[in-house]
Amino acid sequence: MIWMPIVMAFLGLAYMLVKKSWVMKQDAGDGKMKEISDHIYEGALAFLNAEYRLLAIFVVGASIVLAGIAFYMDSTYLIVVAFIIGAIFSAFAGNMGMKIATKTNVRTTQAAKTSLPNALKVSFGGGTVMGLGVAGLAVLGLTAFFIFFFQYFMDGIWTSTSDMTVVLEALAGFSLGAESIALFARVGGGIYTKAADVGADLAGKVQADIPEDDPRNPATIADNVGDNVGDVAGMGADLFGSYVATVLAAMVLGNYVIKDMGGAIQDAFGGIGPILLPMSIAGVGIIISLIGTLLVKISSNDAKEADVQKALNIGNWASIAMVAVACYGLVTWMLPETMQMDFFGEGLQDISSIRVFYACLVGLVVGAGISAFTEYYTGLGSKPILKIVQQSSTGAGTNIIAGLATGMISTFSSVLLFAAAIWSSYALAGFYGVALAASAMMATTAMQLAIDAFGPIADNAGGIAEMSEQDPIVRERTDILDAVGNTTAATGKGFAIASAALTSLALFAAYVTFTGIDGINIFKAPVLAMLFVGGMVPVVFSALAMNAVGKAAMEMVNEVVRQFKEIPGIMEGTGKPEYDKCVAISTKASLKEMMLPGLLTIGFPILVVLVGKLVYQENNMLVAEMLGGYMAGVTVSGVLWAIFQNNAGGAWDNAKKSFEAGVEINGVMTYKGSEAHKAAVTGDTVGDPFKDTSGPSMNILIKLTCLIGLVIAPILGGHAADNDKMTSEVISITSHTDKTEKEVQKTLNINLNKNDDAATKAVVTTTTLENEIKVTKDKIIEGTAEEVEKKVSAIDKELGQLQVGVKKSK
Amino acid sequence: MIWMPIVMAFLGLAYMLVKKSWVMKQDAGDGKMKEISDHIYEGALAFLNAEYRLLAIFVVGASIVLAGIAFYMDSTYLIVVAFIIGAIFSAFAGNMGMKIATKTNVRTTQAAKTSLPNALKVSFGGGTVMGLGVAGLAVLGLTAFFIFFFQYFMDGIWTSTSDMTVVLEALAGFSLGAESIALFARVGGGIYTKAADVGADLAGKVQADIPEDDPRNPATIADNVGDNVGDVAGMGADLFGSYVATVLAAMVLGNYVIKDMGGAIQDAFGGIGPILLPMSIAGVGIIISLIGTLLVKISSNDAKEADVQKALNIGNWASIAMVAVACYGLVTWMLPETMQMDFFGEGLQDISSIRVFYACLVGLVVGAGISAFTEYYTGLGSKPILKIVQQSSTGAGTNIIAGLATGMISTFSSVLLFAAAIWSSYALAGFYGVALAASAMMATTAMQLAIDAFGPIADNAGGIAEMSEQDPIVRERTDILDAVGNTTAATGKGFAIASAALTSLALFAAYVTFTGIDGINIFKAPVLAMLFVGGMVPVVFSALAMNAVGKAAMEMVNEVVRQFKEIPGIMEGTGKPEYDKCVAISTKASLKEMMLPGLLTIGFPILVVLVGKLVYQENNMLVAEMLGGYMAGVTVSGVLWAIFQNNAGGAWDNAKKSFEAGVEINGVMTYKGSEAHKAAVTGDTVGDPFKDTSGPSMNILIKLTCLIGLVIAPILGGHAADNDKMTSEVISITSHTDKTEKEVQKTLNINLNKNDDAATKAVVTTTTLENEIKVTKDKIIEGTAEEVEKKVSAIDKELGQLQVGVKKSK
Repeated sequence: MIWMPIVMAFLGLAYMLVKKSWVMKQDAGDGKMKEISDHIYEGALAFLNAEYRLLAIFVVGASIVLAGIAFYMDSTYLIVVAFIIGAIFSAFAGNMGMKIATKTNVRTTQAAKTSLPNALKVSFGGGTVMGLGVAGLAVLGLTAFFIFFFQYFMDGIWTSTSDMTVVLEALAGFSLGAESIALFARVGGGIYTKAADVGADLAGKVQADIPEDDPRNPATIADNVGDNVGDVAGMGADLFGSYVATVLAAMVLGNYVIKDMGGAIQDAFGGIGPILLPMSIAGVGIIISLIGTLLVKISSNDAKEADVQKALNIGNWASIAMVAVACYGLVTWMLPETMQMDFFGEGLQDISSIRVFYACLVGLVVGAGISAFTEYYTGLGSKPILKIVQQSSTGAGTNIIAGLATGMISTFSSVLLFAAAIWSSYALAGFYGVALAASAMMATTAMQLAIDAFGPIADNAGGIAEMSEQDPIVRERTDILDAVGNTTAATGKGFAIASAALTSLALFAAYVTFTGIDGINIFKAPVLAMLFVGGMVPVVFSALAMNAVGKAAMEMVNEVVRQFKEIPGIMEGTGKPEYDKCVAISTKASLKEMMLPGLLTIGFPILVVLVGKLVYQENNMLVAEMLGGYMAGVTVSGVLWAIFQNNAGGAWDNAKKSFEAGVEINGVMTYKGSEAHKAAVTGDTVGDPFKDTSGPSMNILIKLTCLIGLVIAPILGGHAADNDKMTSEVISITSHTDKTEKEVQKTLNINLNKNDDAATKAVVTTTTLENEIKVTKDKIIEGTAEEVEKKVSAIDKELGQLQVGVKKSK
Repeated sequence: MIWMPIVMAFLGLAYMLVKKSWVMKQDAGDGKMKEISDHIYEGALAFLNAEYRLLAIFVVGASIVLAGIAFYMDSTYLIVVAFIIGAIFSAFAGNMGMKIATKTNVRTTQAAKTSLPNALKVSFGGGTVMGLGVAGLAVLGLTAFFIFFFQYFMDGIWTSTSDMTVVLEALAGFSLGAESIALFARVGGGIYTKAADVGADLAGKVQADIPEDDPRNPATIADNVGDNVGDVAGMGADLFGSYVATVLAAMVLGNYVIKDMGGAIQDAFGGIGPILLPMSIAGVGIIISLIGTLLVKISSNDAKEADVQKALNIGNWASIAMVAVACYGLVTWMLPETMQMDFFGEGLQDISSIRVFYACLVGLVVGAGISAFTEYYTGLGSKPILKIVQQSSTGAGTNIIAGLATGMISTFSSVLLFAAAIWSSYALAGFYGVALAASAMMATTAMQLAIDAFGPIADNAGGIAEMSEQDPIVRERTDILDAVGNTTAATGKGFAIASAALTSLALFAAYVTFTGIDGINIFKAPVLAMLFVGGMVPVVFSALAMNAVGKAAMEMVNEVVRQFKEIPGIMEGTGKPEYDKCVAISTKASLKEMMLPGLLTIGFPILVVLVGKLVYQENNMLVAEMLGGYMAGVTVSGVLWAIFQNNAGGAWDNAKKSFEAGVEINGVMTYKGSEAHKAAVTGDTVGDPFKDTSGPSMNILIKLTCLIGLVIAPILGGHAADNDKMTSEVISITSHTDKTEKEVQKTLNINLNKNDDAATKAVVTTTTLENEIKVTKDKIIEGTAEEVEKKVSAIDKELGQLQVGVKKSK
């Protein structure tokens, strides 16, 4: 069974290769189209190569730090290996997606010459390659490392939860590597695409009054490259990271389920069913997504946006339904029928496996719900969009106010849904339930990515049609695909936020269990202070990203203006614009500007720990709580700012697009070129960095923050490898005394924690329930290991002698 | 000593009356000036009267709810009386400030005819009346109620902390009343002023190309009224609420200091020194502010903005320095030299009174620091402003991006300072230290308000000069005052945020002690879910406020356009605009639109409790934690959004103003009327509701949320009146056994909680320290009151017999 996810991953990857070769075999069109497409391909490749060179340095540096931590902690160096491979896999996934996307765009244009169904087939085919590739690599990498570590540390046989913790800690390196690369891919790609987009818009429309896709616009190639490095490679790396992190977090919590059940269970999966389950769901999800992509097709050449959208919806909903069915099967098959889970402050509770399945359903509902909310707030023709359109009539100021307000108010429903999801999935099956809700939602990642990636491909195809001066019918067809792509881009962002939020939550829970702290108490002033600091980081991060776009866009405009002035015949189409100079500007600016936000993300959690250690030195638990407070602050604030920025940006975008078909304002039909439209264009310019740079970066910011916390956790928590003696006994006695019948129930719990340093702590809890009077005794024994062990064994003996007729469950 | 603050308050109020009669005696100018001033006065009065009628209904409704809670809880109905009086005081304070401001404006115009020093003297005199009135009323009301309740419940003599808790709970009603009115005053006033401002701007500038202060603009009176109801009455009610809430929270925590010291202390103040201290600081602060206002003057008629600013700064800094000195005197005089405070998770610690003084200094530093940061991000000529100006050259889009980014990045320094303040003041003297930091900061409230109120008065004076067509020199002089007023408005907002944040934190701490929960653990899923929900509320609140402004401004524009069309001769100055129609639009809109945000603020915490109770029924502690999580979410998110919105708005405003004197963009001097200036005007339109409606409302939102929590606390916490038996014994034994000398320390703690319902809980903690091995035993006994008491007394007896040579501290 442990091999099943790998098999699924290989199946998915094999299908991907087939699909890829099919796409590559499609006609790539005539000379001019090919030339433009090559420009885009080379620009994108140049950026990625430059980015990866820079990231290689980062990976080396981070590896040294990680090795240092491993040395200091006396833990395994294999985490460094996992980290490097994770980074490479993530980069490879983004690279692969970008390559197929830049090859598919021109083929889509060519296919659009024949018919719309063909164009959809080719563009969605490209998306499918990307989706299956990313998901396949994620499952492959994670499962392979798990099997390797499981063999290496435990010889492939269950020993104890603490040994498994070592395995999972090493596995966290893989996730950390993937997420680190995702951060830079998202931020760098986001800055690139919007600097080019805003630059091309401003330069083309304001300065020379030519469309942004006009071949005379020197920034147009950079703009098209941006679509690929930002929306394709960035999104791919983002979801790759989410996929891996979600599954990892669920595995960590699965390990704790086993711990709560006494440290070992008997099942058909070598006693690790709860740990294998998330991987299995991910593996099955690949095949389900594969089937889902097969359902996406249209037949009529006269199809409109709604038909294309419907085709995509069918595939998407079918996948979600299949995942629900698969979850039912896997959960009931792989989990013990009844599990014990330790609920915070409520003690051990019996949880049936069907409740875990319900938690999975919660995840699916959240994914669908947040996508639906996003569509409501950003979809063409929806009420909020019409309101923004109305408010455009009194100028850009009121348009901006309306757009900001829409983004802000959109947090209401999403956050409530999200809070309800946390609460209910936890109530159903503890934090394991929360993590599995995330896993179930992420199971359709391949399908989501296929839908997502298809948008920028269609966008590019339209650009190539324009630049290579094709028949208007070609552009019309690609425009239909592009319009649908805009909606799927918005809902895809909703999905990405939901996944990031649930993932972070699961990581957060894993962090608490890793460090061994008994919760994060924000009534402690240092913890509360860190909650504030954490809340601030996403805001400052967003500001840095927006400033970067503003700066780079200005440079771009200046370069375009220079070319218009200095290149003779450029406006007449006789002089050739220097596309590569614009590409270089975007490349350079994005690589430079992604540094500071990256540093902020990675540096701050480390800083929190350093300051905490400086002040509290030996009190590691308090420092761990401070870091936990910081993580919570980043997550709460990050989710809010992600929803706000994505939806405001999406709303502005579609408010502007509404003018293309014409809108009624105060009873008058208003079109492109009107004053109201100009106001809407201003709104869109503000929304661009919101929705494509700072907004989507929030996802990675919160995930990476929680992952860093998880990797730091062993330094702070005295849990891990040494936490090797943990017994839990439940003893029931029924005695009859006096004349009346009395029922006395006694429960004893011994919890022994040995740390590296001399200090050892044991908690002996006895609960006596006697005629409805409950007496709980918590005996905490601290001292050197030897002393404490002596004391504990003394108690153990004493109890053993006293009690007769004892039921023990271990 | 208990009467001291009242005496100070009366002194302040007496001086206020003297100053008021002086202001009223000043020449109110000629017929036209008087007419305009009367229009403004009547418009403002009409709004306040309409508002108060509406609020009267609210107060009656809320009183019934409060009485219901009192009935259900079997607690005192006096909280209702305190609530009503608090509401009346707050309304009275706002009303008084507004009246004096609308009387001072025209007198400032008249004084500006003679000289600039005179104009400053009159306008700042009006501000002083406002400041001293608000602060005096706050101290008077709070102290009078405290003395009354102290007599009523405790006969004026210290009995126990739980009796004092009853007193302070009733006192919380006063604070709740004040803050509720402040909410509506801030939100309603904020919507009013910006609807009128944006409406007048758009209508005047866009539609007819006349300045916003032109008498032909029908919205101009509404605009001037708005300055008074928003910036004066709203700010007054806001700081009145902060003042009261801060002192209250510090008193609650002072009571807990006494509890930590064994339940009673001996001092020269009847054993309530720590409770009296915050009131005394507030009382002395009034006199200090009074002295500070006397220092504000200029002598030269040729003074520039910098000189006026310097005069204000001297008064402000002198007040702050005097408060520092006063705090040193009061703290060392009124507090025991060494106190015991219970630090979370660290047990009782000895805290010397000088550390409390240091905490006060932290508060003063935060107040000054946040004002300084605000000035950096929003002051004319600062680096961020120049950057926004540069980015205006490429259009409104880039201007908006730059402004948003500035607001966002400005959270960095303020939040870090704030986090450091929480941490350090807590480390110095626990949450009592945090509350006293807030109290010390708020001590200069009267001075701050005088500086704040002077701005809108000068603004109005300029408007009157323009409308009554005075000599240009008059307008020049009032413009100097207005320019300074813009800076003080921004720093005043910084002060208001800092005060709200520290106040909320103190209230938050008071909440935790009131409910008796042992912290707020965000690792519990329901608590975490509420943290998310709380984080969302300020965002949605802001969106509602912004939408309200947008809607009302559109109505205003339509009305103005109608008047321009339908009233003959209006543009030539022969037809008279119908000012009152515009005033009515703003009045109606603001009253209608303030309902939903108000409902959100008040309803959500109640909803959290109801949902929590529904799900967890008997587990009040968990519900209390959920509400605590909600409060923390609102506070963290509210502080961030307050800083973001205020600073972004302030930055846009001054970026626009920069064009009046001319700015250099890409080497070219650019002035008013340029394309870049138009872009900056758009930014300012967006910033208006940010900085004057939604931004400042955040303060009240977070304070009111925490206050509601505090009032609900007794329902959730099993503390309060019934928590009447709480003994704490510290027993130390040193015994010599064996051959080596062994030191054994034993500490016993019995903590008995009786609730209304049958369930009673006792915690018996024994800590034994024996040769560095620490054994802690926590014995929790739950059952009916009788049974538990029997058990506890049995333990008590057993211990009493066993131990010889026992030191008991009770």
